[in-house]
Amino acid sequence: MELRAIGVEGLPEIEEGMALGELIAARAELRNGDVLVISQKIVSKAEGRVRRLSSAIPGAEARKLAAVLGKDPALVELILDESKEVLRAERGVLITETHHGFVCANAGIDTSNLPEEGTACLLPEDPDASARRIRAEIIGAGGGEPGVDLSRQKRGVSGEAHPRLPPTVALVIADSFGRAWRLGQSEVAIGCSGLQALDDWRGRNDAHGRELEATQIAVADEAAAAADLIRAKDSRTPAVVLRGLDRFVTSEDGPGAAALRRPAQEDLFR
Amino acid sequence: MELRAIGVEGLPEIEEGMALGELIAARAELRNGDVLVISQKIVSKAEGRVRRLSSAIPGAEARKLAAVLGKDPALVELILDESKEVLRAERGVLITETHHGFVCANAGIDTSNLPEEGTACLLPEDPDASARRIRAEIIGAGGGEPGVDLSRQKRGVSGEAHPRLPPTVALVIADSFGRAWRLGQSEVAIGCSGLQALDDWRGRNDAHGRELEATQIAVADEAAAAADLIRAKDSRTPAVVLRGLDRFVTSEDGPGAAALRRPAQEDLFR
Repeated sequence: MELRAIGVEGLPEIEEGMALGELIAARAELRNGDVLVISQKIVSKAEGRVRRLSSAIPGAEARKLAAVLGKDPALVELILDESKEVLRAERGVLITETHHGFVCANAGIDTSNLPEEGTACLLPEDPDASARRIRAEIIGAGGGEPGVDLSRQKRGVSGEAHPRLPPTVALVIADSFGRAWRLGQSEVAIGCSGLQALDDWRGRNDAHGRELEATQIAVADEAAAAADLIRAKDSRTPAVVLRGLDRFVTSEDGPGAAALRRPAQEDLFR
Repeated sequence: MELRAIGVEGLPEIEEGMALGELIAARAELRNGDVLVISQKIVSKAEGRVRRLSSAIPGAEARKLAAVLGKDPALVELILDESKEVLRAERGVLITETHHGFVCANAGIDTSNLPEEGTACLLPEDPDASARRIRAEIIGAGGGEPGVDLSRQKRGVSGEAHPRLPPTVALVIADSFGRAWRLGQSEVAIGCSGLQALDDWRGRNDAHGRELEATQIAVADEAAAAADLIRAKDSRTPAVVLRGLDRFVTSEDGPGAAALRRPAQEDLFR
């Protein structure tokens, strides 16, 4: 078994309103069964989720937290707007639960890799919906047709015909999250479509025929992490193709990365 | 840029005392700059870290916790032996901090993928030391000599000579850990050697020349996650070669995966 991760080169600086799926499909030689991992930031930019800090009017809570944490009150106001609950606010760190249900620092808002000073990038409003839309764009543009890479198709060269197999590529939207007990950030899936996000082995057997203990593999998060390894944070390679994960790719959109959010009532660490 | 993950096939069932590095070097076509990810379980087996449950005499605390959690008292006794602190014990889940400083379920002990019934596998005593030893065995067996894969070397075919470059492969010992706020498990590095476990971008600039916010990438954990994607949990592929991460591979052993443990006093979620 082999997995390959290949960077998609040549994407332009992404601006609001751009059709990400089409831009990517034109540059990636996608094949059926590929998983395309793209950074949250390009999705947010395309969706117009960049805000001027000067547009945020800090309320009393934001001013108070900003003073305690040494943060910009306007940024804290944006963070609170995107959050339903503040979990921790100490030592310069603000951990919240977002309206989507993600637990992360600063509600996932950051100010790096943006062309304009004084702006901040919010997470997409509904990353699973974004993933479904971008995936549909890619498939609509011809990406992922069985055995045919898009560049060949564009030249009018047809590959093998598999008329009964629907074209399937999966789409993951990834962002860097910190972890409770470990240093460093790892990319996780905040949205996905066409991917079995969680591989549930409970009730299946191990190599010795004995039942495995609670084992659910966070496939979408591991895919996001794998993709991160081939791009440096200062590079403009915000899209990576993973080839070799066909067994997790589905023709249906599926439940998305929502399947990876631990419900608050089952969470022992809040 | 491209990353490849390739399973190492044909390893035997691992037993106490086996020289893992030699077994792997003989089966993997390792090249300079490769990162070899191996499962915790084969390391523990080789180090004789498998215990009979019948050998553990449950004390009062173990009996009490076992009753609350619905677990085997002998298993809970083993878990407590391996832990310095119990963080959570509710809803059938026992989260502890191990003597190494890892926060995980059941002190990393599990009973799957073991040949004998009634046994449990503990984490290695010092996974970074294990990683250093296995790496030395691999390099000693000729794995990772610059530009020469081991199978060619064994046939006496010499590759290009790079006498000033030391042979370098990195070694990661991976295990599946749950996460506080997300469902499913992801593989993380519990030990490593010859790898820059944490890529620290703080103070470096983004693509627009602006300073990045706190960005430390948990490279060793992302490598562990990437390797996990190519093996099914019931398969006997406990070793995976990652090719394309040369920039994180070091000739020195380095600080290991200890660099990824968040110190208790900096931890907001205990």
